[in-house]
Amino acid sequence: MLDLEHITSPSVVENNEIASSRLQPSMMEDTFKHRHLGVDRTAQQLMLETLGYDSLDSLIDTAVPESIRLHNPLKLPQPLTETQALNQLKSIAQQNKVYRSYIGMGYYNCITPAVIQRNILENPNWYTAYTPYQPEIAQGRLEALLNFQTMIIDLTGLEIANASLLDEATAAAEAMTMSYGVTKHKSHHFFVDVNCHPQTIEVIKTRAKYLDIELIIDNPQTFDFNTPIFGALFQYPASDGTIYDYSNIIEQIHQQKGVVTLACDLLSLALLKSPGELNADIAVGNTQRFGVPLGYGGPHAAFFATKDEYKRQVPGRIVGISKDVHGNPALRLALQTREQHIRRDKATSNICTAQVLLAVIASAYAVYHGEEGIKNIALRVHKLTKILAQSLAEKGYKIKSQHFFDTITIEIDDLDRVRSNAEAKLINFRYNETSISISLDETTTLEDVKEILAIFADNNWKTRAEALTTNHEDSVGIPSDLQRQSRYLTETVFNQYHSETELLRYLHRLESKDLSLTTSMIALGSCTMKLNATAEMLPVTWAEFNSIHPFAPLSQTQGYQTLFSQLEAWLAEITGFAGISLQPNAGSQGEYAGLQVIRKYHDSRGDFERNICLIPESAHGTNPASAVMCGLKVIPVKCDTQGDINMEDLKAKAEKYQDKLAALMVTYPSTHGVFEEGIKDICGIIHSFGGQVYLDGANMNAQVGLCRPGDFGADVCHLNLHKTFCIPHGGGGPGVGPIGVMAHLVPFLPSTSLSESLSKGGNNEESMGMVSAAPWGSASILPISWMYIAMMGSEGLTEATKIAILNANYIAHRLAPHYPILFTGKSGLVAHECIIDVRPLRKTANIEVEDVAKRLIDYGFHAPTMSWPVGGTMMIEPTESESLTELDRFCDAMISIRQEISSIENGTMDSEDNMLKNAPHTAFSLMTSNWNHPYSRETAGYPDDYSQQYKFWATVGRIDNAYGDRNLVCSCVGMENYK
Amino acid sequence: MLDLEHITSPSVVENNEIASSRLQPSMMEDTFKHRHLGVDRTAQQLMLETLGYDSLDSLIDTAVPESIRLHNPLKLPQPLTETQALNQLKSIAQQNKVYRSYIGMGYYNCITPAVIQRNILENPNWYTAYTPYQPEIAQGRLEALLNFQTMIIDLTGLEIANASLLDEATAAAEAMTMSYGVTKHKSHHFFVDVNCHPQTIEVIKTRAKYLDIELIIDNPQTFDFNTPIFGALFQYPASDGTIYDYSNIIEQIHQQKGVVTLACDLLSLALLKSPGELNADIAVGNTQRFGVPLGYGGPHAAFFATKDEYKRQVPGRIVGISKDVHGNPALRLALQTREQHIRRDKATSNICTAQVLLAVIASAYAVYHGEEGIKNIALRVHKLTKILAQSLAEKGYKIKSQHFFDTITIEIDDLDRVRSNAEAKLINFRYNETSISISLDETTTLEDVKEILAIFADNNWKTRAEALTTNHEDSVGIPSDLQRQSRYLTETVFNQYHSETELLRYLHRLESKDLSLTTSMIALGSCTMKLNATAEMLPVTWAEFNSIHPFAPLSQTQGYQTLFSQLEAWLAEITGFAGISLQPNAGSQGEYAGLQVIRKYHDSRGDFERNICLIPESAHGTNPASAVMCGLKVIPVKCDTQGDINMEDLKAKAEKYQDKLAALMVTYPSTHGVFEEGIKDICGIIHSFGGQVYLDGANMNAQVGLCRPGDFGADVCHLNLHKTFCIPHGGGGPGVGPIGVMAHLVPFLPSTSLSESLSKGGNNEESMGMVSAAPWGSASILPISWMYIAMMGSEGLTEATKIAILNANYIAHRLAPHYPILFTGKSGLVAHECIIDVRPLRKTANIEVEDVAKRLIDYGFHAPTMSWPVGGTMMIEPTESESLTELDRFCDAMISIRQEISSIENGTMDSEDNMLKNAPHTAFSLMTSNWNHPYSRETAGYPDDYSQQYKFWATVGRIDNAYGDRNLVCSCVGMENYK
Repeated sequence: MLDLEHITSPSVVENNEIASSRLQPSMMEDTFKHRHLGVDRTAQQLMLETLGYDSLDSLIDTAVPESIRLHNPLKLPQPLTETQALNQLKSIAQQNKVYRSYIGMGYYNCITPAVIQRNILENPNWYTAYTPYQPEIAQGRLEALLNFQTMIIDLTGLEIANASLLDEATAAAEAMTMSYGVTKHKSHHFFVDVNCHPQTIEVIKTRAKYLDIELIIDNPQTFDFNTPIFGALFQYPASDGTIYDYSNIIEQIHQQKGVVTLACDLLSLALLKSPGELNADIAVGNTQRFGVPLGYGGPHAAFFATKDEYKRQVPGRIVGISKDVHGNPALRLALQTREQHIRRDKATSNICTAQVLLAVIASAYAVYHGEEGIKNIALRVHKLTKILAQSLAEKGYKIKSQHFFDTITIEIDDLDRVRSNAEAKLINFRYNETSISISLDETTTLEDVKEILAIFADNNWKTRAEALTTNHEDSVGIPSDLQRQSRYLTETVFNQYHSETELLRYLHRLESKDLSLTTSMIALGSCTMKLNATAEMLPVTWAEFNSIHPFAPLSQTQGYQTLFSQLEAWLAEITGFAGISLQPNAGSQGEYAGLQVIRKYHDSRGDFERNICLIPESAHGTNPASAVMCGLKVIPVKCDTQGDINMEDLKAKAEKYQDKLAALMVTYPSTHGVFEEGIKDICGIIHSFGGQVYLDGANMNAQVGLCRPGDFGADVCHLNLHKTFCIPHGGGGPGVGPIGVMAHLVPFLPSTSLSESLSKGGNNEESMGMVSAAPWGSASILPISWMYIAMMGSEGLTEATKIAILNANYIAHRLAPHYPILFTGKSGLVAHECIIDVRPLRKTANIEVEDVAKRLIDYGFHAPTMSWPVGGTMMIEPTESESLTELDRFCDAMISIRQEISSIENGTMDSEDNMLKNAPHTAFSLMTSNWNHPYSRETAGYPDDYSQQYKFWATVGRIDNAYGDRNLVCSCVGMENYK
Repeated sequence: MLDLEHITSPSVVENNEIASSRLQPSMMEDTFKHRHLGVDRTAQQLMLETLGYDSLDSLIDTAVPESIRLHNPLKLPQPLTETQALNQLKSIAQQNKVYRSYIGMGYYNCITPAVIQRNILENPNWYTAYTPYQPEIAQGRLEALLNFQTMIIDLTGLEIANASLLDEATAAAEAMTMSYGVTKHKSHHFFVDVNCHPQTIEVIKTRAKYLDIELIIDNPQTFDFNTPIFGALFQYPASDGTIYDYSNIIEQIHQQKGVVTLACDLLSLALLKSPGELNADIAVGNTQRFGVPLGYGGPHAAFFATKDEYKRQVPGRIVGISKDVHGNPALRLALQTREQHIRRDKATSNICTAQVLLAVIASAYAVYHGEEGIKNIALRVHKLTKILAQSLAEKGYKIKSQHFFDTITIEIDDLDRVRSNAEAKLINFRYNETSISISLDETTTLEDVKEILAIFADNNWKTRAEALTTNHEDSVGIPSDLQRQSRYLTETVFNQYHSETELLRYLHRLESKDLSLTTSMIALGSCTMKLNATAEMLPVTWAEFNSIHPFAPLSQTQGYQTLFSQLEAWLAEITGFAGISLQPNAGSQGEYAGLQVIRKYHDSRGDFERNICLIPESAHGTNPASAVMCGLKVIPVKCDTQGDINMEDLKAKAEKYQDKLAALMVTYPSTHGVFEEGIKDICGIIHSFGGQVYLDGANMNAQVGLCRPGDFGADVCHLNLHKTFCIPHGGGGPGVGPIGVMAHLVPFLPSTSLSESLSKGGNNEESMGMVSAAPWGSASILPISWMYIAMMGSEGLTEATKIAILNANYIAHRLAPHYPILFTGKSGLVAHECIIDVRPLRKTANIEVEDVAKRLIDYGFHAPTMSWPVGGTMMIEPTESESLTELDRFCDAMISIRQEISSIENGTMDSEDNMLKNAPHTAFSLMTSNWNHPYSRETAGYPDDYSQQYKFWATVGRIDNAYGDRNLVCSCVGMENYK
């Protein structure tokens, strides 16, 4: 019996170990920080000793210029444990109300097949993969993307499709600029169907603004197409649901060499004549309803298809077939469509990403359903829509059109009555001024149709719908001459995997070909491949976040609004800015939006002539491309041998262009991986000549908690939430690229006039307008960054930055004796990444950077960034999530490769036929009976101890890029022919 | 404008394809059936043509005896789509109320780390794997299980541990029978601490009943241990939370050669002297609180550890280290612990499974936390318990004991007041007659403690707890001489993977070593490795199902009750029985429970002498073992050359033992994969001599919808929900083995006196008692079977059975020209599986069945069941989920292997050094420079086209079982020494 009276004995705890860890509850929590950070205190000590520093802080104090240091902790909430953060976010999520939405406008409810949700969307092998720049270890998602392209080619009836774009609206904008390009600017007028989805029109307005393009937004049924235009965009079916036959109009436009784009609903194409059959030149649209959750607007994969003649003008990435060194078919990104190849100010688009994860889901959906399944879904949706239309018409409602697929518009006098009935039943329609649009979808049942009818009239009338299930009019719906006769999804891949077992195995085969973060470090310089913690990912598939329509009323999305405002406040605190816009759904979008904000700012002051953008030579290729898209003229600024901006040149150019200076775009820490000492001065110079400073936030991972762009002079900065803030790369997308701005720029931030749901950014007059299709871009993945910040807190985030810098310096230190480190700061330290120089090896050993990269695959590693920002180098960014074990394993591999190169240099190994030139080695190639290389199979395939324990095999040998580009094949059909 | 008046045109739908699939909504639904079934109509037609049948029904009518056919559809609800079923189950789940439970009794809230939940529990690579009988392609989970054993060995301080048992109560019962065995029955008395968990005592009572064991259930503090006993069981800490020092009692019992078992709380052992240090002989317990959700009682992994001297008596499976043919360390099940090796009536236990998936989770939890982490968790729980105890004591409450870990018992007068306060706050305590027990756990916070205090007294008093966080008494809690000084989890594996990135990669490395259903067919005869659909698996991790304590009041578990009663009704309809018990949590438990029911029935009629159990020679080895555990005497019945029961012998034996005949145990279709024609007669014979028929339901997959055990004469039958009803095998557990019985046996079904929550089974007087620790066994995985039946409906289930039979016959047909099919029915057809004879190859080619099995690995397949039920054969069960493509691929592989064997027979290939004897080939072994086998590397490693497209590599070569058994090493420590 516990008896307080008799407690007289001395402390009974005598075990020192127990005693020493006597708990302080705060100390005892299972903090997320120590799960996120790969380096624990012991490892830290070892590494600091190696580097010759006695504490992490002394290292950081040396690496980061004192002049820009932040000396207070970030004002963020106390860190939460994983459980606490999930609970807190859940209660925020539950502020959202999940209504059934029939709003349409390009976004529809759909069913994500469970097997796809679990095995792709919730599978780190898919979502932690990087962009497939090392195709030999990315054949799985490249095949899924090829399926995506094939699906788009089939359904649109066009000849070539890319591997996805950000959203339908930006895809339409890309179509506009491509049309402008291919018609060689012979006209400046672009026609936009007034019956396009409104967000598409908004984004196109934004994108046309600073280009030499004039929009004609009008009704195609009444417009005179003899007017000279370089292109036109129509919505098919139109936003109000009406199906128009555009054949004649297309013919008219073609006669005067204009280019026609149809923005299509992908599911409708299962029943409708394809854009290709209508002779359209370009088709764009959203693949969201192919199994991707609504997610309050994104991310989803948009598509872009066109005619073969335009294949070299297609924006974004294209996966193409080529062959490997063994002559086997192999996939890779065709036509060099990678960030590094954005052609600076020659570019016509800054788009350098795709929505890979979402495109993979949409393509898996098509693989699972096949032609028959997709057609059945389309038929069911269409039939129910006909029943709805006919029932309403019988009751005397005026249906705007006789021709529709899944959307009808009802002209109505008593809109408010219907609206309040609908809201009482937790249902959303699309409310226009004097009409209501209703879009049905895959999830709609006959019961739902009856419920809709009951909203419009009395309950009894519902039985009419029942009667119509077997006896509805065929004269409404799809007009006979627009009914599709041609087949689609006939390729093998769409006909083999219709049982769950078969699909599961197919997806598993694909994923197991790809090296992701689940296998090893992916030390991509500038790309920050850190941990994407499961706790961060879990909320993405919560219904409260992913089942909400982007144009649902604000009153239903209070949870999202809370999430946005907290995340915005946190990001503002972290960056030192006054306002944040979450709308840009990729880094490139962020750059573009940031520059637009700057232009709007100058405009607001009457500085209309400010159109010069200074950009250092070392910048990301997207920087000049974004500038050009904003109608800015790019003037390059020289860099010194250390990669730092040449201050003299900067000052000279800023001065020279002082009347026209709009902005400087600068990356910090520099693209060379160094904390430039002069950043404050740089900003000061620009400001002194009336310019604004745009800071590229790609390297924010080196700053969080240590310094803030807003403090040292930046006016705008974009953030890559998919880098610094833990959104996974998804194998090449999605990304999120919010921008932060100083107070004077807040009024110009992106907004939308499409819902009451105005983001930050003041009134619409001042705002730059919409940059993405959805008001908050890729809203459904923002919880990832929220979770990360909530669990790390100020101390955790700051420690992450410090460890990221420690890890990079550790690698630099270990590799320096073997490969020159190209740039270091004054302190001799790098920031969060380092560049090693491989160029000398070309002379000494005939070795290119690519040979080292491919050889790394044999060691089980994905190569770091190749040949950027300096050709022939590698940029290594380990991030804070990697452990000392993994860093050492990587360094050992690199050193071992250097020794292999030495044996070429000293003549021991052949300079043409060696382990580097022939890398990566597939298992099959090492097992051939006819081994005739001058090195052993074992050293080729099992170069170190670790690979003997656990070996990741490339599934194809080195790929011949040039061959595939000469013989461009971008669909599965071609794949079969290739074999 | 849609205008009904003017609809005069003829039907606009002229597209034949669209017209032909004019939708009937029911037809158009995306039915689950066609996702579950691997064979579509086209493939079916092809297969039937091959077999010479013009329809599936004619095949089935030929295969299944008319005399037992069911001619009506099963009375089940209409099938639901995946979405509908998930919605319906969600609304059932939401009838459960998730209270915070402090009930204890061996079940505690815990945190499943998100990375473990997503990457193990929700990962089909882990949960669809089979039992690791082919260790060369199962090194991943074998390593995880070795970690589990090491963790148990470390924490218990004993020398050997098994790879888990079903639950703590059955583990304790196994300890009792093992003690009985190793002491050679010199006493018949077994002491059971009255302060054990009540469910443990109940299960032990059941298990002792028909054995020659007498239980002494008493208070160890007052009992005279000079009484002769063969063993004793104590709870450590006791069920009421008290920590006793059993050292002296153990010494006393040892002096008279008794064996002592401690049932332990695993987390408490982080702070308490281990059972080994107390010199206990056996430790058992539950690992649930190491990251496994409560799940209303299961499944969880129990543990069993003992001294080295008893290693050959350990029940269940043990993973041990051995070496492969290349001399590398390799893991496998040691001591031949597999179903097939259950030694019939010589067995002392019928346990032949483990809870692999749950053991893997628990071991991953230990790997993730390590010694420090586990100790911190234990310390936090313990400290909060001290604060709670001290606060309550200060307020005048009587705490039963001064020594406790996480559980205190408060003697109380006004229990009802506290209870109603608690329930108002959605909190459960454990309510005894005049006391309340409270168990804290990993999830408990100081806030929770304050909330508990507020329930007992006023709110203001909560601040006292705050004060105590830094200043609590050390004199309560763990007594100094029971404080643990020894270390644990010091092995490398527990110290390397504490960051999420590192754990993720470790788990990924492990999973990628294992071949599961995500890779290829696993055609295990009798084991029915069908699709485990994702939609079936999703509800398992819903909080409404997995966060409920097994002894939560019934009023909080209405959702579960609905689920149980629906599932019971459906299973009763499917089997033709009157009552179902869901309690048995494995097939072996079902067998045991079924036989107990039969014994209770005979007893109830005064037939106490009926103790003979007839069992055909062909029976599963567990059958006689279960019979022996029920005190039955096993009399074997002969089988004819076809494997059918010899009717003469059956009749003769039934007649001979008519006064003592208790039961016949029979499998249907027979273990030889044939629908025996005489099953009705067989049952009739047994009944005519007063016996009961126990039907082993392992082969129920051949019966569902076609015939029903209850209709053709069985009195009891167990079902393997993890075979026929889609619960995944989890890599070797969990399973669920409910039993169905005819009306006269319903009163004797398992029950529990531990909650109001009586299952079916009448009052406790008549019931056989508890067979598992939890009232509904492995409740949290029952949703899987519910979903399967709900989505398939009668037609779907029946079609599944037909396709299963079609698939088996197709394989038999294709393989027959190459391997003799051992048994067929009168029709020449097999049921849902077939046995091929490999024995002749021993003479002609020196080839054993194992050689064929291992060579199959080179082709990317898991071998079918080997040497069971007939030595030297293979039993192949493809199930209905496999596609024709996969069946053909498997048959092609088998035929190709037969051709390889032919080349041995005709002397082209060496009879010792060939591709079969050396199989499986690892990638490493094929890459050696010193290849000196008389066949090529390519033919060894890439024997067919498919393997060139997609190759699954064994990670170790063929394993030397005997070596490992001679040198038994069952923990990681040994692993290191092995290298």
